[in-house]
Amino acid sequence: MSVPPNSFAQGDLQDQEVAGYKSPLGVTHLHTVALPGFRTQSGFTFEKIDVSYQTLGKLSAARDNAILVCHALSGSAHVAGLHPETKRPGWWDFHVGPGKAVDTDKFFVICANVLGGCSGTTGPASTNPQTGKHYGMEFPSVTVRDMVAVQAKLIDHLGIEKLFAVVGGSMGGMQALAWATDFPDRVQNCVPIATCLSHGAMQIAFNEIGRHAILSDPNWHGGNYSEAHPPAHGLSVARMVGHVTYLSEFSMTHKFGRQRQPETSAGSKDQFSIESYLHHQGQSFVKRFDPNSYLYLTRALDRFDLFENQPPDAVLKRIRARFLVVSFSSDWLYPPAQSRELVRLLKRANIPVTYVNLDTEYGHDSFLIENPPFANLVRDFLEHGLHHGHHHSAQHEHPVAN
Amino acid sequence: MSVPPNSFAQGDLQDQEVAGYKSPLGVTHLHTVALPGFRTQSGFTFEKIDVSYQTLGKLSAARDNAILVCHALSGSAHVAGLHPETKRPGWWDFHVGPGKAVDTDKFFVICANVLGGCSGTTGPASTNPQTGKHYGMEFPSVTVRDMVAVQAKLIDHLGIEKLFAVVGGSMGGMQALAWATDFPDRVQNCVPIATCLSHGAMQIAFNEIGRHAILSDPNWHGGNYSEAHPPAHGLSVARMVGHVTYLSEFSMTHKFGRQRQPETSAGSKDQFSIESYLHHQGQSFVKRFDPNSYLYLTRALDRFDLFENQPPDAVLKRIRARFLVVSFSSDWLYPPAQSRELVRLLKRANIPVTYVNLDTEYGHDSFLIENPPFANLVRDFLEHGLHHGHHHSAQHEHPVAN
Repeated sequence: MSVPPNSFAQGDLQDQEVAGYKSPLGVTHLHTVALPGFRTQSGFTFEKIDVSYQTLGKLSAARDNAILVCHALSGSAHVAGLHPETKRPGWWDFHVGPGKAVDTDKFFVICANVLGGCSGTTGPASTNPQTGKHYGMEFPSVTVRDMVAVQAKLIDHLGIEKLFAVVGGSMGGMQALAWATDFPDRVQNCVPIATCLSHGAMQIAFNEIGRHAILSDPNWHGGNYSEAHPPAHGLSVARMVGHVTYLSEFSMTHKFGRQRQPETSAGSKDQFSIESYLHHQGQSFVKRFDPNSYLYLTRALDRFDLFENQPPDAVLKRIRARFLVVSFSSDWLYPPAQSRELVRLLKRANIPVTYVNLDTEYGHDSFLIENPPFANLVRDFLEHGLHHGHHHSAQHEHPVAN
Repeated sequence: MSVPPNSFAQGDLQDQEVAGYKSPLGVTHLHTVALPGFRTQSGFTFEKIDVSYQTLGKLSAARDNAILVCHALSGSAHVAGLHPETKRPGWWDFHVGPGKAVDTDKFFVICANVLGGCSGTTGPASTNPQTGKHYGMEFPSVTVRDMVAVQAKLIDHLGIEKLFAVVGGSMGGMQALAWATDFPDRVQNCVPIATCLSHGAMQIAFNEIGRHAILSDPNWHGGNYSEAHPPAHGLSVARMVGHVTYLSEFSMTHKFGRQRQPETSAGSKDQFSIESYLHHQGQSFVKRFDPNSYLYLTRALDRFDLFENQPPDAVLKRIRARFLVVSFSSDWLYPPAQSRELVRLLKRANIPVTYVNLDTEYGHDSFLIENPPFANLVRDFLEHGLHHGHHHSAQHEHPVAN
């Protein structure tokens, strides 16, 4: 692998890293499908939704080897291989491909941009057919459960009744959890990574700072900004805040410490390297992400609550999947204690669950970077499910509600 | 005490808390002195500097009981007692007063607003006598050592040769360290609290996000904003970021969790309580703090390095003070490891040092809130110095530098 493990991913590889990078999948392609009639949890009805997605590997004749990979806040459907235009690798190229954690030689991998996103799936920047203009803030509020319901329609479209697995980190992990509870008969294996049952005050706080920066950018104009003049400063600040929370003190010290930028570089005199790194992250994000999408998706994250006023036991007893839950010791944005709480509840409900807290130094981004122990863990869990799936489900008898 | 220990201080008590609050010092007053001729580390010469300061207690006939308390980023000279106009308590009223950690019955306490600040001491918002306008970005860069050099001139003005102690938390702790090394013969006891030898990448990152938010606010105008239209949104975002880093996950969960605002409140529908709390903090800060000061002071914080390209041993061997170093277990902005590194170096240099890592749940703000074990620790250290000071200095023979 040519990308070093401390490249601080979230999909944003540096240009010099991209140049030397080869994906075993080569160039991969994205598709878009228009799905008719979707009603959100909030009661808004779309006549149709465009969904951008990618598939890798081959669907088996029995249609029983499909794995849905769910992306995080700033991800997209482009999960692995090189983008046909930018030649950048997908956000999980380290872990999706032939022989990798999610093995495209064995599995049919699907990844779709979420509802409310800005990479091909209908979102606030899409054209509202009622007005001919961008939806902007007229876009209905979106929940993680809405994202999952759209993915279920995509799976229908692909002719897949049951997913072998749903896998995802961060916001993707919330989607995995929502799949297991909202579509219990359609998920055999569930792998929520570096995620939680619901955000706490600190997670909400960091997101709200980002939203506040966007909303108070004079270019935001109530969400009706022009493409030429988006609230770029606000989105850039939001991304900088996000980025710091994805890293760890160790990783920042290790990579940047108190290094200064070389005097010849573009940054102002005496700038610390961490400062120009964050500026770069902010600026490059602005080129590929819609500020309104950032508002909608972070709201979805903050409002997600797996139990939503229902007794946890009632929700959990619907689950039919077996679980692999993964957290990372240095992840302070989604601290391991949140994963342990999820595991505690799954175990109390007699759901088969394997839990591993991996000892890493790279913070929340640990799930995105190269990490052989993590890859082995996910690979083994999925392959064990492949060989012993029926045996397992027979062994695991759920109490039936009522 | 009527203010609960989880009031999340940084000087920003909520209005309802201020209403019921009584300070044993009653109303206290601020003074301003014009000190002539000051040259900064960067080589800029001020013809005169105004310094806002407060004194509490009585200077002994021997002039040997003076304690300088140094404030943090958003503090001011108003350290204790009630402000004559706002009736708000000083930022360390919990710990400075009769019988308190810094006992005004025994000590003569001095606190001064720092150079570059915006609460009475000369700073970017002051009038530049050369132009008749605000200094703005023509203000010279300010260092922690400049702040301390100005304080030394104030001490001269007050007729005090030697300070019994210098005490401070966070940026105040950096000042205490700079005092002990830059004016070794004028400091008997040094109490750096929740601070460090220099900022690491993560501390710089959070400050840079705040600066970026201010600099990219269109109202900033290269620092030449009008009083009526300051870059308030940018400063507000900066304060929100800062505030989150001063708290801890525990304290935010404990105080806010996923509570929503009551529907009758001013916030938007479905707003989380943590969101409106942060908005309130941002907005109230804008009323009392100058955005350019925020830029200058955070730069001073980020650039502070006690050793500044000198061999640590050469710097440390100048020190004549005995030390109490305090950190807090839940402080993730100035983590205990940074205090331990300071203590390790002090011990290696044979400097008498007591180190305590206090087990608290309130993050970096732990040094600002009511905390009897902390108060006892500081009180005992200072009183022990009072009774055994001469004995100690006799016992502690420093190697003399060439």
